[in-house]
Amino acid sequence: MEQLTFGQFNLVYNMLSFAIAAMIFSGVFFVLARNRVAPQYRISLIVSTLVVGIAAYHYLRIFNSWEAAYIIGEAGNYVASGKPFNDAYRYIDWLLTVPLLLVELILVMGLASEKRSKMLTKLVIASFLMILLGYPGEIITGDTSMFSERGLWGLLSTIPFVYILYVLWGELGSTISNQSGKTGILLRNIRLLLLFTWGFYPIVYMAPFFGWEGATATVAIQVGYSLADVLAKAGYGLMIYAIARSKSEDEGYKIGRVVTAT
Amino acid sequence: MEQLTFGQFNLVYNMLSFAIAAMIFSGVFFVLARNRVAPQYRISLIVSTLVVGIAAYHYLRIFNSWEAAYIIGEAGNYVASGKPFNDAYRYIDWLLTVPLLLVELILVMGLASEKRSKMLTKLVIASFLMILLGYPGEIITGDTSMFSERGLWGLLSTIPFVYILYVLWGELGSTISNQSGKTGILLRNIRLLLLFTWGFYPIVYMAPFFGWEGATATVAIQVGYSLADVLAKAGYGLMIYAIARSKSEDEGYKIGRVVTAT
Repeated sequence: MEQLTFGQFNLVYNMLSFAIAAMIFSGVFFVLARNRVAPQYRISLIVSTLVVGIAAYHYLRIFNSWEAAYIIGEAGNYVASGKPFNDAYRYIDWLLTVPLLLVELILVMGLASEKRSKMLTKLVIASFLMILLGYPGEIITGDTSMFSERGLWGLLSTIPFVYILYVLWGELGSTISNQSGKTGILLRNIRLLLLFTWGFYPIVYMAPFFGWEGATATVAIQVGYSLADVLAKAGYGLMIYAIARSKSEDEGYKIGRVVTAT
Repeated sequence: MEQLTFGQFNLVYNMLSFAIAAMIFSGVFFVLARNRVAPQYRISLIVSTLVVGIAAYHYLRIFNSWEAAYIIGEAGNYVASGKPFNDAYRYIDWLLTVPLLLVELILVMGLASEKRSKMLTKLVIASFLMILLGYPGEIITGDTSMFSERGLWGLLSTIPFVYILYVLWGELGSTISNQSGKTGILLRNIRLLLLFTWGFYPIVYMAPFFGWEGATATVAIQVGYSLADVLAKAGYGLMIYAIARSKSEDEGYKIGRVVTAT
């Protein structure tokens, strides 16, 4: 592991802490605000709570691992302590949260029951495959060419990713376009948020192919992953909440009416 | 890092602990008491809960960092342990909580939907800029003149601060003046609380320009920030609660009516 300057170590440290706070307190918000949406949309907020809760757990582990992996050297720099920095938590996190993010989106769309089940099955399987196929390539560290084993796993993992995009733009495109004004805009925006945040991960995956390495790359990858995760989980969850609020209002739901279902 | 006397170290230690307790239990109050206000004002109490929760998290981290940064020396004084005291948590905390404090205030005012969205956008962007522009100056440690790089970032950060004050006194001034007796007084008071507590932070920022340094300055800054944060977050949240209660009463809301949704 490479040496880090005081500033580099602490930038990652503070970004990881920022991710923990963002995940925990967006979760608190989803719990406290779930009755502000109509009963049929509360399940999406419950799923959002699970996503950010799982992420908070893994970020706490990543934070502790980061802290343990370095000690202050004599020159005031941070040097390897001998304990490895465990980043594999991220894959376990994604294996659990990525399918749930797609579940949230499908549930908030309020599709007919039969179509919903079909979509959920397709997207959950595709997202599992996407993560599982990426992992074997991720743990190969020597490959610096696109035409290597790492590159092959990356390519295989991209197939389900493209399929997910095909479902969201192709098969669900007309459902989304048919939604009324504000709800329709929000659904189109969340689909774009998903595209841009998820698109960040393959770029990081390809970092070794660009010859991108050393302390600066380590720091950029950790900061980038943290920001992408905060947007793709907490930010995404807030957009799901806004969609659920908008649909609840469209359907005449009033906050504070006698509604006991949760 | 400078040596601290036994009393200096423990004053900061106890103030940080006080802040943790104040943040956690004001949050418990906001959760437990949120159904005492009319449904449309509960969102302000939910946002208050997030603010003090995020602050509690960061104060726990600051507390741990403070404890780890010093050890008892031979003379009974506290000397640097070699671990740095990480104060950057404060900026991450502010980046998340300061926009939320303005959101609480706007939501409790009960503006018409369109005006509310406009105000929220303006104030959230201004508060983000205020924090982001202050940070580069904060981490410059050598500058002791107002006409330095630190001073320049401070000045840039002051522009959005003044803009926020302009919106609260100018654009929202008449809305606040038009509120009935008790609610109007409370709204005017919370605006003053915001001005005085937020006004404290730039003074601390300018400490190096006054030649203010050493152990006494470190202690004064930590105690000052902690007190300002407790007032600006927990105290402010309690005032938001009082405003929400007063408005709920004005609008004929009765506690204990059959309203189960939250």
